[in-house]
Formats: sequence, structure tokens, C-alpha cells
Amino acid sequence: TVDGDRLWDSLEQMAQIGPGIAGGCNRQTLTDADAEGRALFQRWCEDAGMTMAVDRMGSMFMRHEGTEPDLDPVHIGSHLDTQPTGGRYDGVLGVLAGLEVVRSIRDLGIRTRRPIVVTNWTNEEGARFAPAMLASGVFAGVLTEDYANSREDADGKRFGDELDRIGWRGTEAPGDRRIHAMFELHIEQGPILEAEGKQIGVVTHGQGLWWLEVTLTGKDAHTGSTPMHLRVNAGLGMARIIEAVHRIAMDHQPDAVGAVGQAFLSPNSRNVIPGKAVFCIDFRSPDLEKLTSMRSRLEAEAADIAADLGLGIAIEPVGHFDPVSFDEDLVGKVRGAAERLGYSHMDIVSGAGHDACWIAKVAPTVMIMCPCEGGLSHNEAEAITPDWARAGADVLLHAVLDAAEI
Amino acid sequence: TVDGDRLWDSLEQMAQIGPGIAGGCNRQTLTDADAEGRALFQRWCEDAGMTMAVDRMGSMFMRHEGTEPDLDPVHIGSHLDTQPTGGRYDGVLGVLAGLEVVRSIRDLGIRTRRPIVVTNWTNEEGARFAPAMLASGVFAGVLTEDYANSREDADGKRFGDELDRIGWRGTEAPGDRRIHAMFELHIEQGPILEAEGKQIGVVTHGQGLWWLEVTLTGKDAHTGSTPMHLRVNAGLGMARIIEAVHRIAMDHQPDAVGAVGQAFLSPNSRNVIPGKAVFCIDFRSPDLEKLTSMRSRLEAEAADIAADLGLGIAIEPVGHFDPVSFDEDLVGKVRGAAERLGYSHMDIVSGAGHDACWIAKVAPTVMIMCPCEGGLSHNEAEAITPDWARAGADVLLHAVLDAAEI
Ligand SMILES: NC(=O)NCCC(=O)O
Ligand SMILES: NC(=O)NCCC(=O)O
Repeated sequence: TVDGDRLWDSLEQMAQIGPGIAGGCNRQTLTDADAEGRALFQRWCEDAGMTMAVDRMGSMFMRHEGTEPDLDPVHIGSHLDTQPTGGRYDGVLGVLAGLEVVRSIRDLGIRTRRPIVVTNWTNEEGARFAPAMLASGVFAGVLTEDYANSREDADGKRFGDELDRIGWRGTEAPGDRRIHAMFELHIEQGPILEAEGKQIGVVTHGQGLWWLEVTLTGKDAHTGSTPMHLRVNAGLGMARIIEAVHRIAMDHQPDAVGAVGQAFLSPNSRNVIPGKAVFCIDFRSPDLEKLTSMRSRLEAEAADIAADLGLGIAIEPVGHFDPVSFDEDLVGKVRGAAERLGYSHMDIVSGAGHDACWIAKVAPTVMIMCPCEGGLSHNEAEAITPDWARAGADVLLHAVLDAAEI
Repeated sequence: TVDGDRLWDSLEQMAQIGPGIAGGCNRQTLTDADAEGRALFQRWCEDAGMTMAVDRMGSMFMRHEGTEPDLDPVHIGSHLDTQPTGGRYDGVLGVLAGLEVVRSIRDLGIRTRRPIVVTNWTNEEGARFAPAMLASGVFAGVLTEDYANSREDADGKRFGDELDRIGWRGTEAPGDRRIHAMFELHIEQGPILEAEGKQIGVVTHGQGLWWLEVTLTGKDAHTGSTPMHLRVNAGLGMARIIEAVHRIAMDHQPDAVGAVGQAFLSPNSRNVIPGKAVFCIDFRSPDLEKLTSMRSRLEAEAADIAADLGLGIAIEPVGHFDPVSFDEDLVGKVRGAAERLGYSHMDIVSGAGHDACWIAKVAPTVMIMCPCEGGLSHNEAEAITPDWARAGADVLLHAVLDAAEI
């Protein structure tokens, strides 16, 4: 088994970098804090005898050698970047548990035939640059490097420029490495495992997603002196579409969610009727039919709402993946490891998107989940117990050893 | 009559300072551009033989001497600050027409018994620091200096600190000057005069206003993995309240308006259910009963909406004035001047708030309006014709001469 205290201690140390304002983290991708977190992770890995490769998207591949270096490696990966008001464990647990797996293997004097590569994928969160899981998407060939480099944050800064600025652009071509199997341990970010009293979620599927960025164009005008019938109010249109998103998700229950998390009014002045509103809709479902149906209903209803108010409307998809099924053989390995270790477990569907969802397109992939308190994530108050972290890392260790061939 | 070309030329020159991105202006209060605009206005006034006093709110009082300096002066005033995406004439016309009145009086060799003081009131717009008409409100004793100095912009910068920073804090105690009569010429910012084909609006009343800043508190959570029934979505609450504001204003037709111009979601990330929403409601009516009724209905409905979604709610009034009646004698002087000059005119109610609305509490006050194209204001495309500007300034000149006693 792994050293749970050492894992917990590393999680605590990483959380000091890019601290939040309420106990969590703000280590958004390609910020100075991200660079600092990467450097710490690199040092820890090198101290554990690993060697580094970095690809042109900034993804870090830390390699622990196998007795047969020519065999395709087993990958363990997740992300070190966080939401602006993010938790300490979302992503970070999966990366540092990977490191803990290597540290434990060395401590225990175990040799695996296959190399083990622990990966930190760049910009998983999609908070600063949409879409989420950007670097793993490029790795999987779903997104192009040019597209990724051109993505802009809210200040108009480009992904490619910021990657250069923090000095973490590598030379390896994204996707140019063979993966025998990929494992991702992640906190559930939902309430099911805790409610069911299970220590381990064996992730069989992942939800699909549509991110739809809506731009409504009305007319800036004075809130006091413009009669009601002459207004072309983009803020009112936005309000109606936010309500429609909610109603559409409710009409697709169960197994469907929808919300607007990000919105900008323009000029955003108290006494100006908003001439422009830009906001992003997030729809998800494990059921492809529901996912598609939510998107088409929204497009129809939003067009009606805009027409009714005289607003211009444009809807641009800025993120998308279909529901995914993980590799059955690897799912079996994870279930078997939990069984052998005596951890309570259940099969579960991932509500969030993960790098594993993209890697599943190019290599056998699976995820392991551990509970988080109250199902809370993307919140600085996100919390897990040291026992949950250790159980997840133990299952990861055993499943990885199984795949890496002792 | 005034020199319409000179007035137009000054308007054009002022518009070069703090230019917008679409032909208008971004000369928000207490920015470097505001300081530059003030310096230009000061130079023009001093070139016209006027002397300057500045009060502790930064309001500028440019004095043209009368033959009887001890008589209470006639004031002409408006503001040089603009919205972030503002027009070239909103406020600026009233200040520069005041200067043009003095320039014309000098050119024509006219002497008035009373001094004439042309005023630039600080922070009329309320775009950067709520409430609007801040310095004239302090002058009128409705707001305190401490309150004004403590107001914060969206970046947390304080009014008092920014006034010091741009170097425009004067020494005169706000309100410590006698005003025989105050005149404000302003563009209508609404569509009525143009639609009615009138050159001059004789402003008899002004609408009252409530600015209500609403803070909704929910729970940051993941948009993908949080089931619908566990969400506490502040963005959805905001959407419902924006719709309620619209419905309430429509239910109070005619003579009532309502909208939300400014909104901030937090953490404003695509995959985080907003844990917080802060937005400002703007309700107006010339009818005190309707104004009060809109506010109380909103408070009741917003509380229900918040309770329904499990959201915390706080509503803070950040701007307020009652409907105002302007001085009947001065209204007569304006109407008489328009009549004598042969300009078409009509009585009108101001839809916007103006410094004149506060000064009316402490001195006889009146406003003059000129049309603006399509009623458009708080928009960079705001436009007036040189003829409309000249007609307004002519009426201002004649009404001021009437009050200042030749
Ligand atoms: N796990 C996670 O929060 N990933 C970010 C992408 C998403 O929104 O699902
Ligand atoms: N005239 C003008 O736009 N003043 C700003 C205050 C208001 O919103 O009415």
C-alpha cells in the first residue's frame, strides 16, 4: 500500500502555491502560480528518480523506468491547474497520487516491466481558456495545436503566448507517444459515493458535454430616458435564456444537467441598458440523445427569445465531448484491486469531464474516484479525508502494478 | 445669440480627450482623462477671463464677474465625465454651452449685475462610483462628504483616493456658496423632442429613481457533477429577478421604467454554478407613488425568488432621488426665451437624473433640453446637430441674461 501521510503532506504543500481566499486554491493555468506548481512537481519527481519530457502544449510527462524500457508505458495522469476559486484536490490528487505510486514502488523495491509515466495535463479546467481538457484534447488529436494556441482568456491573452511567457512550452509533438494504459484518479465532485458510503468509485462511463457561448446584441441606451417599448435589452434576453437552460435541463431529468456559469454584460454600467451580453451555457448528460436534444431545444428557444426582443444572436460551441465508455478490461482491473484491498466500491458515471475522457479515444483508459464532502467541488471549501485519498491511491497502485506487469 | 461654430468646435475638441472605441467617449470620473478634460476646460475659462474655485468634491466653479460682485451669482452647470461607452454631448454640452454664454457676453460687450459661474460637477454619471450626481448631492447636503469619499469602484478604488490621485481636490467646503439661480442645458437622452419636431424642451419636472443593488448568495459547485436538486444557483436567481424588474416596470406603464444594467457573477467560470450574483436594478418614474410601488413589489418578489431557490439575499439602495419640480419662475424664463428667439418648444419631463435635480433642493433651478438623434444616449453613437446645440445655447444665454440682470 501507499504512504498515505506522504501523499497528504504533498497535497498540503501544493495547496500553498496559488492559495485561494477561503482555504482553497487559485492556480489557474499558465499563471505564475501554475509555473511554480509545475516546478515543485518536477523537483519531487526528479527526487524520485524520474525523468521529464514536456510537449508543445506544456503537458509534463515524468517517467519512471521499467525493466523493459521499450514496452509501451502505463500512464497515470490528471492536472495541477485549478479554478479561480477552486479546491485543493480537483486534479491535484490524481497527479500527486501518481507520484506517490512511483515513490511507493521504489520504497517497496518493486520493479515493473513497463515504464510508468505520471502526467500533468495543461489547462484541464477550461476556466481561463475554454475549452476544458485542452492539452489532452490536442494529444488525442481532437483539437489542433493552432486552435489551442489561439484560445483567449477574458483579458484577450492567448494560450500560446501565455505558455511561452511562463516558460513551459516543450518540444515533443503532442500525441507523439504510445500509451499502454492510462489511469486517472479523481475526486467525484458529486455526492453519490459519500451518500452510498463507498470508498471507491469504479468509473465505467463519463457524461458528454456542450458548452455554447451565446452573444446577444441589442442597443446601449439610457435606463432612465428610454421608453420601455424602444429598448433592445441584451440583459433581459440573457435572463430569459438562463431560465430556458434551467427549464430544458429539468425537462430532461434524470441524467441531464444545465446551467450558465459565466456571463458578461456590456457596457455593464448601472444606468445603461445592456447593448451586449456574452455568456456560456453548460449542458451535460451521459445519454447522447438527451445531450443532443437539450442543445437543439436551446437553440430554438434562444432564437425565439432573441427575435421577440429584437436582439441579434450568435451561438458558438466552445467545448464539446460525447459521452464516453472506459476500457472494460481496465475497469475490471480497478474493480479487482478495490476488491482485493477490501475497499467498499460501486460503479459510477463521471459527471465532470476529465483528461481521461480524451485519452480514452487513443488508448485503453479508466478512472478511479474517491468521495468528496457534500459532493462539493469548484469551490474553495472542497474537502476529502486523508483516508479517502489513501484508499484511492492504493487502488491506483494495485491497478497500475497489474497493468505495468511486475 | 451665441457663436454656434465656436461651441461646436469646443465640443469636438473635448471629445478628443478620453476617446471611446466607436466615436464616442470614455472619460470616466477621476481617471487621467477626466483630469485632462478638466485642465482644458480650466484653460478655456481662464482665457475668457474667468477665475476658478474648486470644492472638496472636485467640482469646478469658473466665475465671470458681475458689475455687482456681492450679488448672488447665476450658475450654469453640468458635467464633463462620461459613461465608459458614452456619447460626446451628455453633460459636456451643458458645461461648454455655459462657457459659450460667457464668451458671447464678452464678445457682445454685455455686462450683467450678477456674476455668472459655470460649473463642472464631479461624478455625475455614477458609472464608476455609485450613486450618480455624487458631488451635486453633497453640495445640496443630501449626501455627506464621508459617504462620497468612501464610495468604491469595481476595482475597490475609493472616490476620495482617486480624487486626490488626479490632483483635483479643492479646498472650498461643498455647498458653501450662494446660488441666485441655476440653469442646466442637457440633451434629452430620449426620443420625444425629435419625434415632436421641437428644438427646445422646457423641463418642468424630473423623474425620481431607485438604484437597488442586489446580492444573491448561493453555493459554488461543479456544473457537471452536481445534480439539479442540489444546486443553489445565484445566476438563476439573478435571471428571475431581471425578468421580475421588467414585468414590474411593464405593469406600471405609462410613466415608469426598469432595467438591470450592471451584473457580476462569481466566480464567473464556465463550469461553476455561480455562488454569488451582484447586480443593480434601476427603477424610475415621475410619479412618486409608482416609484415606491415598484420598489416594494420588487423587494417582495425578489425575496420569494431567493427563498424558492434557497439563496441568501440582501438589497442595498445605492442611489435614490424623489421626482423633482423645477422652479416655476425660471421655467417661465426659459419658455419666454425660446418664445422670443422663435424656437419651437414644448414642456417635458426629464427621464434621466441631473445635477440640477439636486441643486433644486437648495436654489431655484431649471433645465433646458435639446433633442438627440433617435433618443440615443449612454451609447457612443449618441448624436446631436450643430443647430440643436446652438438653439439650446441661445435659449440658455437669454434665460441667463434675464436672471443675471443686465
Ligand atoms: N474535473 C473537472 O472539473 N474538469 C473540468 C472540466 C469540466 O467542466 O468537467
Ligand atoms: N444624465 C445622465 O445620464 N445622468 C446620469 C444619471 C442617470 O442615470 O440619470
